Amino acid sequence: MNIEINMDELKELVENKEYKKLKFLLERMNEADVADFLEDLPLKEAVLVFRMLPKAEASDVFAFLSVDIQKEVINAITDKELHRIVEDLFVDDVVDMLEELPASVVRRVLENATPETRKTINQFLNYPENSAGSIMTAEYIALKQGMTVKDSFDYIRAHGQDKETIYVLYVTDQQRHLEGVVTVKDLLMHDYEVPIEDIMDVDVICCRTTDDQEDAANAMKKYDLLSLAVVDKENRLVGIITVDDAVDVMQEEATEDIEKMAAILPSEKPYLKTSVFDTWKARIPWLMLLMISATFTGLIIDRFESALAACAVLTGFIPMLMDTGGNSGSQASVTVIRGLSLKEIEFSDVLQVIWKEIRVAVCCGATLAVINFAKIWLIDRTLFGRTDITLAVDAVVCLTLLLTIVCAKCIGCSLPMLAEKAGFDPAVMASPFITTLVDAVSLLIYFRFASAFLHLV
Amino acid sequence: MNIEINMDELKELVENKEYKKLKFLLERMNEADVADFLEDLPLKEAVLVFRMLPKAEASDVFAFLSVDIQKEVINAITDKELHRIVEDLFVDDVVDMLEELPASVVRRVLENATPETRKTINQFLNYPENSAGSIMTAEYIALKQGMTVKDSFDYIRAHGQDKETIYVLYVTDQQRHLEGVVTVKDLLMHDYEVPIEDIMDVDVICCRTTDDQEDAANAMKKYDLLSLAVVDKENRLVGIITVDDAVDVMQEEATEDIEKMAAILPSEKPYLKTSVFDTWKARIPWLMLLMISATFTGLIIDRFESALAACAVLTGFIPMLMDTGGNSGSQASVTVIRGLSLKEIEFSDVLQVIWKEIRVAVCCGATLAVINFAKIWLIDRTLFGRTDITLAVDAVVCLTLLLTIVCAKCIGCSLPMLAEKAGFDPAVMASPFITTLVDAVSLLIYFRFASAFLHLV
Repeated sequence: MNIEINMDELKELVENKEYKKLKFLLERMNEADVADFLEDLPLKEAVLVFRMLPKAEASDVFAFLSVDIQKEVINAITDKELHRIVEDLFVDDVVDMLEELPASVVRRVLENATPETRKTINQFLNYPENSAGSIMTAEYIALKQGMTVKDSFDYIRAHGQDKETIYVLYVTDQQRHLEGVVTVKDLLMHDYEVPIEDIMDVDVICCRTTDDQEDAANAMKKYDLLSLAVVDKENRLVGIITVDDAVDVMQEEATEDIEKMAAILPSEKPYLKTSVFDTWKARIPWLMLLMISATFTGLIIDRFESALAACAVLTGFIPMLMDTGGNSGSQASVTVIRGLSLKEIEFSDVLQVIWKEIRVAVCCGATLAVINFAKIWLIDRTLFGRTDITLAVDAVVCLTLLLTIVCAKCIGCSLPMLAEKAGFDPAVMASPFITTLVDAVSLLIYFRFASAFLHLV
Repeated sequence: MNIEINMDELKELVENKEYKKLKFLLERMNEADVADFLEDLPLKEAVLVFRMLPKAEASDVFAFLSVDIQKEVINAITDKELHRIVEDLFVDDVVDMLEELPASVVRRVLENATPETRKTINQFLNYPENSAGSIMTAEYIALKQGMTVKDSFDYIRAHGQDKETIYVLYVTDQQRHLEGVVTVKDLLMHDYEVPIEDIMDVDVICCRTTDDQEDAANAMKKYDLLSLAVVDKENRLVGIITVDDAVDVMQEEATEDIEKMAAILPSEKPYLKTSVFDTWKARIPWLMLLMISATFTGLIIDRFESALAACAVLTGFIPMLMDTGGNSGSQASVTVIRGLSLKEIEFSDVLQVIWKEIRVAVCCGATLAVINFAKIWLIDRTLFGRTDITLAVDAVVCLTLLLTIVCAKCIGCSLPMLAEKAGFDPAVMASPFITTLVDAVSLLIYFRFASAFLHLV
């Protein structure tokens, strides 16, 4: 990247109170970088520096700040300054912020909004979390049929300044029913006197306010849209989702999937901003549940205590069998979970997926079993002289390995699909859960083979 | 989503050879949906249906198709049709396709391109994989200083039709050096006679052709850009990256991270399109490596065989200790890996991260140890009458649990950061690797405590 801002230099300016020079530099910086810089300062100084920003830049920087600093800033500025910021911000950014702020601060923000803005904010706050309505913005441009290309440009020139995008324009009737969509590119490719109903696309891709935000983002990705229309149940246009918000949603959802796959309850805050207590809260439920499940695996071992005592060499192979089973299962489950969330796999593919996993499992299992058989015989028995490892023991271990991998891959690929079908989030059926289950399965297979081949009880 | 296409109905039309009706419907569908439909057909029929599409739509649909179908289509169409498609496609889409096609097909594609297009394609093919150059497109609009707003609009009207975006315009000198950027919104907000040098932004955010595509995508996300300028090392504009390509990169990178975290070598193809052999190839290396590492854990158990024989009750707790340790370590590593890849965490935060993880680990460890202590005493000993579980055994298990969790979280958070510092991809330091390492650590702690408290050898 070509723009390199020396944050340390800026920090020194703050420390030495060289505010004039600091102000000069801040005005030349990109708003996202100014926000980054403020995030690195102690709260008090961040507020101090924020108030130095020129009014026009302040709102833009404010939108990029984390809620912690936004709160401090709101507490420090006058009602007049707050009014300016609230009116300058896009409604979706105000709503994002209000959802995280304490009630007293929310009240002060709403008091300093115009009645009209306040009404829109309240309406937006009522959309369910993670719905398309909760991430849309009301700052779009709506045209009317009967306008020409020239009328449209005049309208954009008059009303476009504070809109979040001016490149996608929606055509609505008097009751705000969505009738068509036209882009600035379409306008520019036609003569000024052409009526927009001749060039607008009547098949508008749109979503409902109550649709899942992830579905909305996926539709934007699929159709390469810069902006997606959001309508209510009477097909009236109530807002738009812009591509930058869709990008944020996709990244959030990927993070959430990754967290769930690692047995963590998803959190919205960045890691370094989350308190120890919140991190503990997000991690302890699954750890506890998995710990308790793992005690059942222990029960299986206890049940076969006498077999292990009679043939102690078996114990040493338990970690390898359990780990390899767990890893094989995780590979299958994670692949399927990601495929489901990218819509590459659907429940109707379940048989195709299982059949594929069985074949992959047999290939992986056979490879590992052969390698392991040779390794045990050549290294453990011949090189290290472990004469207690008989051919039968070696065979039991390697057969268990093969069968465990096949079971693990079947469990790993089918559980997430069943979860999806049952309406649960497939991501929780990932590594830790599969591992715990596969541990038990691998031990049962192991002891069954051991009983059969080694004549143990 | 409001547009629902009944794929089954379309398939029936293909089967019954009702091509007229099919053609009528296809012409009204979105290109992305037509491509989806073709993907679901057998190859031969897909090519047949593709050739029914009107010429103007064909290239757009072609860009959405998977390489398998693209190859079949190329083999089936005439040179003239191929020429039209190659010239209609954006250069970045042609390059993506050529990278996957066999050499003979590549030759035919290049033969049917104009010399100019061929030159650009060859240049693009030389950019390293995953570089900004490899995902950029050459179809941008460059303006010259001295043009007014009106001149710019005239220029866009004349040259904008086949450009990938017309909303972000770059100002360059005669040698294509990047001098500024101006958006159509800026143009629309100013009078027609204003010269563009008065309104252009001279601080252009741009990247080098050789920069990592992930960095380019992250910059676009950070600064909310619709298009990012790509320059060569002499600061000459060579292409742009559009937001839809950046979105694809972000999603690919997230998938790649997820795959690596699950010990799978990343693949570019969707799951259902990957052959069993390729899936096997992607999964077997890590499975093998982890299987071999797990045998060391087995060696630890063998080493303490006599201790286990003397106090057989200890064996039953091994799965619980190993699993909980592994899960705790994965939670920390996955959180840190995701933080690193979203740039929320940097190497300089390493001490802060470790200190945080230690505190979280002590909280989690203490919670689980207390619950486990009570559970072993009340359920295993009192309820099930396992008198071989003494107070000392219970204490050894719970102390091991606490210490294992602390070690697991420290290993889990520090290894990915060290990998990042050493220039490796932190994602490979995820669950499976951490689990294997933590397994060994937890057993060593367990046997050490057992020796000390239970006076075993």
